Amino acid sequence: VAGTLKELLDGASEFFTAKPERARQTVSVGCELVGVTEVAVKAGKHTLTVDEPKFAGGGDAGASPVNLVLAALAACEAIMYRCFSERLEIPFESLRVEVEGDIDLRGGLACADVSAGFTDVRVIIHLEGPESAERYEELHRVVGSNCPVLDTLTQPVNVSTELQIG
Amino acid sequence: VAGTLKELLDGASEFFTAKPERARQTVSVGCELVGVTEVAVKAGKHTLTVDEPKFAGGGDAGASPVNLVLAALAACEAIMYRCFSERLEIPFESLRVEVEGDIDLRGGLACADVSAGFTDVRVIIHLEGPESAERYEELHRVVGSNCPVLDTLTQPVNVSTELQIG
Repeated sequence: VAGTLKELLDGASEFFTAKPERARQTVSVGCELVGVTEVAVKAGKHTLTVDEPKFAGGGDAGASPVNLVLAALAACEAIMYRCFSERLEIPFESLRVEVEGDIDLRGGLACADVSAGFTDVRVIIHLEGPESAERYEELHRVVGSNCPVLDTLTQPVNVSTELQIG
Repeated sequence: VAGTLKELLDGASEFFTAKPERARQTVSVGCELVGVTEVAVKAGKHTLTVDEPKFAGGGDAGASPVNLVLAALAACEAIMYRCFSERLEIPFESLRVEVEGDIDLRGGLACADVSAGFTDVRVIIHLEGPESAERYEELHRVVGSNCPVLDTLTQPVNVSTELQIG
């Protein structure tokens, strides 16, 4: 499977280098409010329940949106480590990622003029494997420059919102 | 339940206005690579499976990280609509949110000097209810200024990453 992933990713790189217009894609998801704060999300064939914890007035039926953002970042880092580990042939044995983010709850409650979202986020990658520290630092740098969710958070994204009534 | 949510959120606003230091919180999640690209995420008591689709070399055991980011945004918008609907007393009957984001796959593959993450994201909120369009536009503006995940995406977040080997 390892060889297959490298071949697939190297092949995709070649393909998209030749046909850049095919690399520009649109990802979409949809959701519906199905309880007080419970949300049913559909992302392709996958469904997921999002909710607020009880202290925030929710039913705690699933992870909260702010937890989900950090989950996306943690998982993206882990997957990018795997992808570039295969492509650069820097194997590892195990990988865990911890992410924590600072947030001021007054923003979401609209009771102070502070950012509603995360201001500072810290990612720690725990890796075990047979390669040298230098090789793993190389892997870390490549992932750091090419991780889609990391890039989405560190760069400002242009988000438009539209309300359709009825 | 509706009254309870308003009371809880208004109470939290008062509490955090009086004690701002209690509003500054740190949210944390952890994950482990458990397959080729399959990741098991723990966010408090909630667990979730993240994976890449098969065309990207994964097993498609769960939503992908880039889908998860959009899911977090869609769900956060929906929940903030509920919260401010209760607080501002602008009731609605049903709410759906669609989110789509543009991404260039060459970024994550490191085969072109383009952003790896989302550049443009569009959110459409579909709402049905008995209030006037003006009232719902007011709700839309308040959510737009106070949605934690929307703010996290539109503002650049300071993210540090650290690799720990062994």
